[in-house]
Amino acid sequence: MSEPIAIDDAGDPRLAAYRDVRERDLVGRQGRFIVEGEVTLRMLLSPGARFAVESVLLAPERWPGLSDLLGGAGPPVYLAGKPVMSAIAGFPIHRGVLAVGVRGAEPGPEALIPPAPAPALLLGLVGLTNHDNVGGLFRNAAAFGADAVLLDAEACDPLYRKAIRVSAGAALTVPFARAASGAALLDLAERHALTPLALTPGGDETLGALEPPARALLLLGTEGPGLPNALMARARRVRIAMAPGFDSLNVATAGAIALHHLAASRSARSARDGLASFPDGEGE
Amino acid sequence: MSEPIAIDDAGDPRLAAYRDVRERDLVGRQGRFIVEGEVTLRMLLSPGARFAVESVLLAPERWPGLSDLLGGAGPPVYLAGKPVMSAIAGFPIHRGVLAVGVRGAEPGPEALIPPAPAPALLLGLVGLTNHDNVGGLFRNAAAFGADAVLLDAEACDPLYRKAIRVSAGAALTVPFARAASGAALLDLAERHALTPLALTPGGDETLGALEPPARALLLLGTEGPGLPNALMARARRVRIAMAPGFDSLNVATAGAIALHHLAASRSARSARDGLASFPDGEGE
Repeated sequence: MSEPIAIDDAGDPRLAAYRDVRERDLVGRQGRFIVEGEVTLRMLLSPGARFAVESVLLAPERWPGLSDLLGGAGPPVYLAGKPVMSAIAGFPIHRGVLAVGVRGAEPGPEALIPPAPAPALLLGLVGLTNHDNVGGLFRNAAAFGADAVLLDAEACDPLYRKAIRVSAGAALTVPFARAASGAALLDLAERHALTPLALTPGGDETLGALEPPARALLLLGTEGPGLPNALMARARRVRIAMAPGFDSLNVATAGAIALHHLAASRSARSARDGLASFPDGEGE
Repeated sequence: MSEPIAIDDAGDPRLAAYRDVRERDLVGRQGRFIVEGEVTLRMLLSPGARFAVESVLLAPERWPGLSDLLGGAGPPVYLAGKPVMSAIAGFPIHRGVLAVGVRGAEPGPEALIPPAPAPALLLGLVGLTNHDNVGGLFRNAAAFGADAVLLDAEACDPLYRKAIRVSAGAALTVPFARAASGAALLDLAERHALTPLALTPGGDETLGALEPPARALLLLGTEGPGLPNALMARARRVRIAMAPGFDSLNVATAGAIALHHLAASRSARSARDGLASFPDGEGE
């Protein structure tokens, strides 16, 4: 088992990737990203994770609890006291757990769409620039087993530090890809036999009454302006029934409600098909 | 129409309630609370709101857009430039809209429960100390028409500044009351013929398969420890079906999914009863 490497000097060049974390959040990291905290580190190193780990930086007291995860042929582990960690990162590090991940080549969206006629559930995010909302939507996508998240060019980076944290690490496991625009997402839906569902307070049908399509692309826009009309014209427009006078839900919350409906109905249909004695795999 | 009052001096005693906003968030305000921003101010002054308004403090440039709301026999309106507002509040005021509300006498929980056998949907929060989560749950309670939110003694104050903001103002309109403990919430459910539903990842039945009770108390606990076992033993334990290996939802999100199910089924049942030609009010 490789041993952790003690670091005493905040200027040590081996920790260059951890320097000035917040400033680099803004300018980017040349193909790398930062993970904070034990929960997300465990996700980063889990069998389902998609990213290589360049290194891990721990406060020495965190090593015993994490050595099971980090021993063997894993990435180098640096140990530095919290004052040194904080001096490097440029802000107080309370939890004593940081890591640098490597983005690697990003897949194209086509690669993430299960081929027809298999069931498919994809989430399409249009213009969502808020890290909390994008992080929350990854968490919800993971909870309900969405196949992937597709983002337009404006949507923020799911590997931004705060988005990873809010996602409870799901940004590290749920596959995602960029399309050039919302229109490009609709084009993908057409080419891959996905029913585009636009979630909007002005929808023509309620979510509760919607029989979920076997292959769906659920489209979400920003809380204020919502999805562009040109996109909604090419989709089934679905609304969440709400109390009169207060049609306001957080976009990540609205997405969770819709994903739950689409995923739960999918399981229910599988169970029903099973009862009707369809041979495996021919139930759809 | 009463005219707004211009204030030039950050030491003006008429603005005492706005002084050192953040410090007073911690120590309390002796029966008052602070509202920030136009959206929540409009909620505070809406016909459905429950609280008296002691005064409003605006940057002068916000007055023309709000004079429709604030004219007549409303509360006094003070105008002060953003530098003066920031000096009083103790942090930068960007939006230029603050107000002081008066808590008034808080109702007891009994007063907020619709009498049996009318339909009822109540939300019970046990041990929730996070202002974002409590604010988000008020927003969701409003969206799905819950009758009230009942809090145990540990749950945080819904009129805390950040909780109001995250609730999109719903903390100002959805009735709430305190019970002494989670056990007291269960006692209330028993006395008022409410079916207690404990939302928990280890639930015996899935939400999707649950036929919603006509009168329900939905109980939510903290994300980590969840609801105490002693409470769950007295409730129907319901879980949200999730993908294998990731049973993690934010508690406000989980609450939204459950409220949507309970409220949507209630509307669907009303509609079905209507189709079956039940006389009004006898459909249950």
